Amino acid sequence: MGKKCIGVDVGGTSVKLGLFQITGELLKKWEIPTRKEEQGKYIIGDVADSIRQVLAGEIAGESISFKDIAGVGMGVPGPVMPDGYVEVCVNLGWKDKYPARELSDALEGVPVGCGNDANVAALGEMWQGGGKGHSDIVMITLGTGVGGGVIMDEKIVTGRHGLAGEVGHIHVREDETEHCNCGGVGCLEQVASATGIAREARRKMAGSHTPSVLRQAGDQVTAKDVLDAAKEGDALALEVMEVVGHYLGMALASLALTVDPEMFVIGGGVSKAGQYLIEVINRHYAHFMPISENRATIGLAKLGNDAGIYGAARLVLD
Amino acid sequence: MGKKCIGVDVGGTSVKLGLFQITGELLKKWEIPTRKEEQGKYIIGDVADSIRQVLAGEIAGESISFKDIAGVGMGVPGPVMPDGYVEVCVNLGWKDKYPARELSDALEGVPVGCGNDANVAALGEMWQGGGKGHSDIVMITLGTGVGGGVIMDEKIVTGRHGLAGEVGHIHVREDETEHCNCGGVGCLEQVASATGIAREARRKMAGSHTPSVLRQAGDQVTAKDVLDAAKEGDALALEVMEVVGHYLGMALASLALTVDPEMFVIGGGVSKAGQYLIEVINRHYAHFMPISENRATIGLAKLGNDAGIYGAARLVLD
Repeated sequence: MGKKCIGVDVGGTSVKLGLFQITGELLKKWEIPTRKEEQGKYIIGDVADSIRQVLAGEIAGESISFKDIAGVGMGVPGPVMPDGYVEVCVNLGWKDKYPARELSDALEGVPVGCGNDANVAALGEMWQGGGKGHSDIVMITLGTGVGGGVIMDEKIVTGRHGLAGEVGHIHVREDETEHCNCGGVGCLEQVASATGIAREARRKMAGSHTPSVLRQAGDQVTAKDVLDAAKEGDALALEVMEVVGHYLGMALASLALTVDPEMFVIGGGVSKAGQYLIEVINRHYAHFMPISENRATIGLAKLGNDAGIYGAARLVLD
Repeated sequence: MGKKCIGVDVGGTSVKLGLFQITGELLKKWEIPTRKEEQGKYIIGDVADSIRQVLAGEIAGESISFKDIAGVGMGVPGPVMPDGYVEVCVNLGWKDKYPARELSDALEGVPVGCGNDANVAALGEMWQGGGKGHSDIVMITLGTGVGGGVIMDEKIVTGRHGLAGEVGHIHVREDETEHCNCGGVGCLEQVASATGIAREARRKMAGSHTPSVLRQAGDQVTAKDVLDAAKEGDALALEVMEVVGHYLGMALASLALTVDPEMFVIGGGVSKAGQYLIEVINRHYAHFMPISENRATIGLAKLGNDAGIYGAARLVLD
């Protein structure tokens, strides 16, 4: 087996790539644009060409033989079936594809693995990030939406229909009235994503006369504004975070009572709020877990946008 | 490896035992009382003695050598850590025990496995019951309480603190005011157990003047009364089942978005209501899963009270 591996994180705008030692050291990372034209038919070829060019000698003037590459892993923005089948990736234009097989064919048969990007990021955080040293984690990514990944025994739980780890669409909020993108009403994503936190702040501003620094931003308020203000003790921002924490705590408890991981890793843009956010979530999570104090801990993700390439690289090391 | 195996289901009143072919055929089942005195110190010895007696020749006059026994599995009413450690089994009086190790020592070193009884029952249903032919199922047992078990890749998901599959304590009901046994408020068990269904019926009777056959039973109303009446179209019973179905559907959707099994298996006394119950749950589950129609199906358990001995026997066949 080769001593190096490559992780590929295919996004709607760019493809991130990383060359790793199989021990987890990132040797080089680079990026190429995602060519989405003609149903994204050029993406796999572009990835293969880019990997070839890098292996041909751009690191310290030395070329790397394909024989040194244990494999290539790839995260894609859509559900991936256990056999590697991708029915659809809306953001890439892909339909009815086996991306891993295609990339392997384009790279002289090197082993290629493929997974959903949120799941793959979770694997990356387990390997070299906030979950390092653990084998069973659940990652929750609080970004524009809410994504997740369940890792058990150092492997992604894909599920039978590619739905495992779709924690953003767990129903938590009974008094919600607006619809989520998924068609549901009251999904975790509607209240705990950056978008959801900002929306909750707008609602609270509209629904009260509580003075708040957030009123300066008005309808342009962001999740970052809310978290910054909450840390400063702003009453309205604190109210917003009580709502967010309530539903996040509820969802984490539900996950703990289903798969009972060693730890939860919280990532995504919202997690930049750091330890304050963890404390809010932890308090509500404890409230929903009176059954036992011996339970999964909660911590921050560490790899940021690199989680995808780390996890993709880790995909092929089993 | 032996061609037969033994499953032991240790309950608070009696211990059920079964002798199986490793292919899943139940050859003999029997029961012994659970001696709980002195912190349940006699239970393991009683089980060992009983197994010895049966192997000594009670089946068709033929004795069975220990060499023919691939192993003995045991389900116990409490959390079991991945290493077999049992901190406490309230119903048995056990504390700080490794029951599998003890039973193995008492049976000349035969391999013994141990798991939580609800998890073990789920494994049994996967092996020879409602989930036969599947490798990834979640079982929900609607009895006096609500229990569950998550099976992935034909193995029990125990979790890191023995909490996996504790689905009865997932928080679902925000407007609940009474406390659950676990200390929480609004657990699935409070509304979907036999006890919970009867309580909901009492609440609905007290809160309305809707005529109903349930009013004959009054405070003695049972979950069976409610389900029988709902099948006959009784308006109040149907209202109760809408509430029960709502929260069960919500919990199943949450589970599907976490581990995404092939199917859910519904067992326990309440499941004797049969296909009617499945239809109620399915309708609400679909409502909470707009994200995809390609999702886990829902079916009935088939082994009844024997699920525990089947699953225990299956425990040792890996």
